[in-house]
Amino acid sequence: MPITLKELAALCEARCQGGDASASVYAAADITTAHQGQVTQLTNAKYARYLKASAATACFIGENSPTETVPDHMALLVCADPEMSFIKAVELLHPKKTYINQIADQSIIDSSVTLGQDIFIGAYVNIGENSVIGDGTKILAGAYIGNNVKIGRNCQIHPYAVIYDDSVLGDNVIIHSGAIIGADGFGYKFRHGAHIKVPQVGNVVIGDNVEVGANTCIDRGALGSTVIGMGSKIDNLVQIGHNNKVGKHVIMCGLTGVSGSCNIEDYAILAGSSGIADHVTIGQGAVVMARSGVAGDVPAGSHYFGSPAKDKKTAYKEQIALSKLPDLIKRIKLMEEELKSLQHLDKE
Amino acid sequence: MPITLKELAALCEARCQGGDASASVYAAADITTAHQGQVTQLTNAKYARYLKASAATACFIGENSPTETVPDHMALLVCADPEMSFIKAVELLHPKKTYINQIADQSIIDSSVTLGQDIFIGAYVNIGENSVIGDGTKILAGAYIGNNVKIGRNCQIHPYAVIYDDSVLGDNVIIHSGAIIGADGFGYKFRHGAHIKVPQVGNVVIGDNVEVGANTCIDRGALGSTVIGMGSKIDNLVQIGHNNKVGKHVIMCGLTGVSGSCNIEDYAILAGSSGIADHVTIGQGAVVMARSGVAGDVPAGSHYFGSPAKDKKTAYKEQIALSKLPDLIKRIKLMEEELKSLQHLDKE
Amino acid sequence: MPITLKELAALCEARCQGGDASASVYAAADITTAHQGQVTQLTNAKYARYLKASAATACFIGENSPTETVPDHMALLVCADPEMSFIKAVELLHPKKTYINQIADQSIIDSSVTLGQDIFIGAYVNIGENSVIGDGTKILAGAYIGNNVKIGRNCQIHPYAVIYDDSVLGDNVIIHSGAIIGADGFGYKFRHGAHIKVPQVGNVVIGDNVEVGANTCIDRGALGSTVIGMGSKIDNLVQIGHNNKVGKHVIMCGLTGVSGSCNIEDYAILAGSSGIADHVTIGQGAVVMARSGVAGDVPAGSHYFGSPAKDKKTAYKEQIALSKLPDLIKRIKLMEEELKSLQHLDKE
Repeated sequence: MPITLKELAALCEARCQGGDASASVYAAADITTAHQGQVTQLTNAKYARYLKASAATACFIGENSPTETVPDHMALLVCADPEMSFIKAVELLHPKKTYINQIADQSIIDSSVTLGQDIFIGAYVNIGENSVIGDGTKILAGAYIGNNVKIGRNCQIHPYAVIYDDSVLGDNVIIHSGAIIGADGFGYKFRHGAHIKVPQVGNVVIGDNVEVGANTCIDRGALGSTVIGMGSKIDNLVQIGHNNKVGKHVIMCGLTGVSGSCNIEDYAILAGSSGIADHVTIGQGAVVMARSGVAGDVPAGSHYFGSPAKDKKTAYKEQIALSKLPDLIKRIKLMEEELKSLQHLDKE
Repeated sequence: MPITLKELAALCEARCQGGDASASVYAAADITTAHQGQVTQLTNAKYARYLKASAATACFIGENSPTETVPDHMALLVCADPEMSFIKAVELLHPKKTYINQIADQSIIDSSVTLGQDIFIGAYVNIGENSVIGDGTKILAGAYIGNNVKIGRNCQIHPYAVIYDDSVLGDNVIIHSGAIIGADGFGYKFRHGAHIKVPQVGNVVIGDNVEVGANTCIDRGALGSTVIGMGSKIDNLVQIGHNNKVGKHVIMCGLTGVSGSCNIEDYAILAGSSGIADHVTIGQGAVVMARSGVAGDVPAGSHYFGSPAKDKKTAYKEQIALSKLPDLIKRIKLMEEELKSLQHLDKE
Repeated sequence: MPITLKELAALCEARCQGGDASASVYAAADITTAHQGQVTQLTNAKYARYLKASAATACFIGENSPTETVPDHMALLVCADPEMSFIKAVELLHPKKTYINQIADQSIIDSSVTLGQDIFIGAYVNIGENSVIGDGTKILAGAYIGNNVKIGRNCQIHPYAVIYDDSVLGDNVIIHSGAIIGADGFGYKFRHGAHIKVPQVGNVVIGDNVEVGANTCIDRGALGSTVIGMGSKIDNLVQIGHNNKVGKHVIMCGLTGVSGSCNIEDYAILAGSSGIADHVTIGQGAVVMARSGVAGDVPAGSHYFGSPAKDKKTAYKEQIALSKLPDLIKRIKLMEEELKSLQHLDKE
């Protein structure tokens, strides 16, 4: 759906400067690849060098950005927050697929289920006893919703996501394909040479505006709930064990594992492939850097790195020292020889 | 289903001491959150401080445990093994969902399939040619069972688990959602600039009482079988490559990877996010600690840590030494200066 | 389907030497387990010691291989490339399951879909609007194909793989069960205390002859495409983030993560559980060793190890030095004492 730059600017809180405000754009693109008819953004100085040769019809840019290299054909869409204005433009130019209200014939919905208004239920969906689906929620083909599940309003559950019994989801929650919400936690007691399963009878509670990535697993509590706080965003292939309490607006990147009974406080960031031992607290706003393994509490606001993870400064200092170690060993050997010859001299 | 403490004690091999034996409980809960009408356990001294303020109606506790801080309203359920008694209580108070014998109309079961007694087959289940399903086994909605699969008695296959052709499962096996049993192993030969696929024609054999976590993958053997021994417990998002032989009662925690043709002997423990190179033996009862990467054999009974993993004591000693290294560099520099000035003195 | 050695040799570019060329074999097996009626291979000198006691009826072996320990009953199938000849033999003796052309009644295929010749579509398959399925492609039970998806010829999409809208797959592509192609990338902007989702409106483009393992995730581009080049092979449980450009014939082993906007050049190898930070280039033919974490560009042809990853030689040198460090600390302490006593002497 093409749109003129003039209209686009008005809808995206920008003003059009230079170029041809009556020209149309039909798509958004990256500054390195955008061509005619596309709109792009320049929000990172690292990419400024691409501006000069860009064929993009228009470019979102912040107030007071340097503009000397803007090509003549290009209109600038000057705005206070070009990242947010560009997001709006992308949404306008690439509207989300809409799902017409529908309940597929091939779905199986228990008669005790409560369905809201304006919902979409795709083929091969299962919804178990006493579950409740909120207004505007879309449950795409093949998603499995167990018994006693509560799903809020305007959620989107993607194909083959599995929401086990007793899970509770807030509003505007997105669960991507293959995510498994509420499988049994991993708990055993060792008796007479065998591992005896500890019943996992809790559930999973997910707050509003949470997004859960593809093939991510969030286990139910053994007793009580595993909790994901409002606004938290979880990437693909993340493992969240039983009874973890994840705060609000937490970020967890791909392949991260949180073992169990941890507190991940608000605004914490667990970078890719990081891991958290059980019963650990990650303080508010703390960052666990990529591939780090955390065995003890991490203070609020700190950055931790390594395995075992330490304060970033300490960890970096150790890494730098380690890189000097092979040379250091030679220096030590030399000193030992010199010392020996000095001792020898002294004895003479 | 509420139950009196007197009844609960009798069913859980405990004796009721103090409190009101005729009081009822309806649920089990953690000692930090239990309230009236709930029963809890105290099995870890670290949690003893929560006892005094707990509103729980009853608490499982070991013989001869210190009980001076027990609140007046609380009954103690004294027993020889409070963890096992509490498990029994949880099972009584939170009975598992029962699946009534049923074969869903919307399932597809090949005419050559052999079905046992008392089985449950959910909607959208597929069972391929010549497969055999044992008595009491439950195959929940959407699970996919290939051809020539043998599943033992009293197994539970969760939604959207996939059991590829030729897999063999023992009795009491639990396969959680999204687990993929018997996909092709990862094997290629490099010829003329391209990777040529090595046919993967073996299978997966899983022993009795094995539990396989959500989204875990166990690849079929290239030739012969990938084997998971009796009683082994595998967490979520674990990768087990082709031709691994996993022994009995092995534990593998989340996000662990075992590449291929390894021997993981009985009672070994692979902690979270650990990784094992191919053709490696992990000895009986050995522990590979979290995030460790093992490139060579690990002796029975040992604890290994780090990447590359070493005996825990060695690895810890190195970690401690590394933490001293930045300071050590300063000391070495100082020595070098002092040595130089001594040498200078000696020359004089 | 048994086959005589004479026939097998002719079909596999080998010549039969010793043994009984008219004998039949019915299966292929590993040299450590092969018994009568089976054919094996010896291509790795490490396994030569198993030859003498092997009951295999025949063994593929290279020209000019040492053969003094061949048992009398065993025929040698001598050939220029025993690995490739053995692959041919495995394919002959263990033919792949064939899927008869069929479109399952229980599948849902939008009326706008274009279907090629000789295709198989299993039960509970969904194919969305305007998608195109090439000749000879097999879409097994429960696979989900979104809207505007293009799948080439002779592909195999396994049960419960999910191919999101707009994905493009070449010819001979294999997508294993639970793989998720084209879910949203992980992108947010932080505003007013919350993470705002960046629309993910790109797609995934997969070249010919690519194989994608079970439960692997390949995210769509935010804008533009995430690309997997021809002939690349991706193991299970791999995370490939948005806008990565993966070259041709790349290998990625299990549990590896590539965050986003990386260039993984042709013939690169990412070993198991490795991780790549965003906007990084892995040069042609470079090897990122197991469990390594790469934060910056890796030169073509190099081998990198560790976290943070370094050139293998440097990393190994540091590891060896680290192993000497605990002892080194003692030597330094001794030197300090000796130095002090020398200084004391000099002052006297």
